[in-house]
Amino acid sequence: MSTSVQTMVHPILGIRLGIAKAGIRYPDRDDLVLIEINEGATVAGVFTQNAFCAAPVQVCKKHLKEATPRALIINTGNANAATGENGIIDALATAQGLSDLLQISPNQVLPFSTGVIGEPLPMKPLIKGLPKTFANLAANNWEAAARGIMTTDTRPKCASRQFKNGDEMVHITGIAKGSGMIQPNMATMLSFIATDAKIAPNLLNHCLKTATNASFNCITVDSDTSTNDSVILIATGAGSVIVDDQNCEDFMKELQAIMIELAQSIVKDGEGATKFITVTVNKGLDVTECKQVAFSIANSPLIKTALFASDPNWGRIVMAIGKSGITDLNQNNIDIKINDLKIVTHGVRDPHYQESMGANALAKKDIVIKVRLNRGDASATVWTCDFSYDYVKINADYRS
Amino acid sequence: MSTSVQTMVHPILGIRLGIAKAGIRYPDRDDLVLIEINEGATVAGVFTQNAFCAAPVQVCKKHLKEATPRALIINTGNANAATGENGIIDALATAQGLSDLLQISPNQVLPFSTGVIGEPLPMKPLIKGLPKTFANLAANNWEAAARGIMTTDTRPKCASRQFKNGDEMVHITGIAKGSGMIQPNMATMLSFIATDAKIAPNLLNHCLKTATNASFNCITVDSDTSTNDSVILIATGAGSVIVDDQNCEDFMKELQAIMIELAQSIVKDGEGATKFITVTVNKGLDVTECKQVAFSIANSPLIKTALFASDPNWGRIVMAIGKSGITDLNQNNIDIKINDLKIVTHGVRDPHYQESMGANALAKKDIVIKVRLNRGDASATVWTCDFSYDYVKINADYRS
Repeated sequence: MSTSVQTMVHPILGIRLGIAKAGIRYPDRDDLVLIEINEGATVAGVFTQNAFCAAPVQVCKKHLKEATPRALIINTGNANAATGENGIIDALATAQGLSDLLQISPNQVLPFSTGVIGEPLPMKPLIKGLPKTFANLAANNWEAAARGIMTTDTRPKCASRQFKNGDEMVHITGIAKGSGMIQPNMATMLSFIATDAKIAPNLLNHCLKTATNASFNCITVDSDTSTNDSVILIATGAGSVIVDDQNCEDFMKELQAIMIELAQSIVKDGEGATKFITVTVNKGLDVTECKQVAFSIANSPLIKTALFASDPNWGRIVMAIGKSGITDLNQNNIDIKINDLKIVTHGVRDPHYQESMGANALAKKDIVIKVRLNRGDASATVWTCDFSYDYVKINADYRS
Repeated sequence: MSTSVQTMVHPILGIRLGIAKAGIRYPDRDDLVLIEINEGATVAGVFTQNAFCAAPVQVCKKHLKEATPRALIINTGNANAATGENGIIDALATAQGLSDLLQISPNQVLPFSTGVIGEPLPMKPLIKGLPKTFANLAANNWEAAARGIMTTDTRPKCASRQFKNGDEMVHITGIAKGSGMIQPNMATMLSFIATDAKIAPNLLNHCLKTATNASFNCITVDSDTSTNDSVILIATGAGSVIVDDQNCEDFMKELQAIMIELAQSIVKDGEGATKFITVTVNKGLDVTECKQVAFSIANSPLIKTALFASDPNWGRIVMAIGKSGITDLNQNNIDIKINDLKIVTHGVRDPHYQESMGANALAKKDIVIKVRLNRGDASATVWTCDFSYDYVKINADYRS
């Protein structure tokens, strides 16, 4: 299963999606997406831990507590973040507008926004766009919706799987957006995932949190955490399978695979990315310290620029391990491999290592950095991309 | 007093400096510097907290405990880091070589290295270079020594001051190097500072630590902490003034000014830097949280690229404050100014702010970002630079 939209995308019984060009920031661009959810579904969400969390995030959290969502409405072009009380009023008005259209209660609507921070949400075009999204609701609109939530993304991100539970099929389909301001913390950018299985709210929450920690919380493009990150998981229950404590293992496995696929596709589409980097840290005392070392490597601008240049400047990896801040690290125990090439053994250059081997290993587009701390049995893996001229270009030009 | 070497550089009684082209990595380049210290001086040092600290750092710490240093020897071109037991042997051999020459004990020599990590120190040229540094020892070689310790630096960094204590003058002169792998933690890159005052070891240590926290520990170029960072402060006692608990306030003030000047000159010479950025966070609960917010802003690649482009994308500042991880931050209390322009007031765009004003403010080369958390009385200031195409270029090309 690849991240390409060529992939088979399974519609999810109970979900319809509508897309419109509302003209929120740019003309003639899909920028408003409606996801309609059947009655009887359960919905779970995780959200950014950024203290400047956006107005729609605040409204989402409130609505999720009060009611079971029947609709998600997502706009691009404006993040409705750092907009104060007026931002909340605008997010609530969006929910109200959609609830009138769908004949549901306003708190059954979850609003999401992504785009520029700090400017008022353009309510006129947004409200005018709502009936357009309603007019083209369809079950097979997942790919169009994936395109409709893009901002600086260069490609839509969609993943879909099915698996057998006894004789019955379960389907899971998800979309995501994001390519900058990416180091999620508890949740990430925007992602919407649905399954036709029936799942109780507590179990659904547990599945989402566990899978988020193993997917979106393991990626970084630039160490920056957005104000608007949100991941939503919907179980429509419109299919024939009930997932519960007895049989949730298969579901978790497939859900996690979809979320890892979406998370990796965000890194692969990272702003200016030319390479996909996996950083695995093994034999640490606990997962926390392994993640700490892995993110120290994955976020180092010096390592990311060396990876861009295919320069086997492994001293920078050593530096990043050393600065990661874990206690009592003994440098003489550290091993480092790039792909399967031994670079550092017991804290010094491996006796068989030669510069040309390192250059060969880094010439690949897909690079695995493996670190062994040799002081425990825990592991962690994070994914990132390199740091190119284009990262600077994209982010120096983004708003102009 | 500026960082330019045009500035008056006061020689320090008791200190002589010698420079040589030893050919450690490149031919025909000053790459070995000897700083000779008179008998009776006191010496204090602070060193990197990177767990992969280099062999010379380990030897320096040991020697500083055992004896009073009579000589510092600094090579560029090779960091002697991640070199294991052989690295230690090489650093000790360097000290031994110099001690023979100067007729002192080997543990009265402190070795320093900077350059590429992970390769064996080229001992032959280094040892051969030692007599050359000895041969041109002179009291007025501070500027030449500042040049001799440069790596990717584009200019030498030297600062010098004098002040009156009663009728007598005290002189302080310092040099520093560094322009990448810069977010010091407890110490930083290489800096060597000397005064002709007489200062007891405990007080000298206290002065160095306090001034380091207010200078080198407040700068960041790329959030990366080097394996070799060291700052050394020498009090030769060869002048006529004794600094003690009674009169150390003036000395501290002047020392701190020199160290801030050197620290800022490192940021101004940051790899690819086109702008000098001061981030001040006021009205926090304590200095720690103010520094945390300030570094979250100063290290954000999204903010640094926007500063490079003079794009007043202040939403990214809001994002960086929010992601900094301080507890119970109320976004509605935050104020942000750029220079003296109010951008955000009570968490939202200031009513008088206009985009064109922001663009004007950011067009300057010298930018102050002021954040008020409005929840306490603590403050912190850090200094950084922007993030340009040239940062990527320099670090993608560094070793080739």
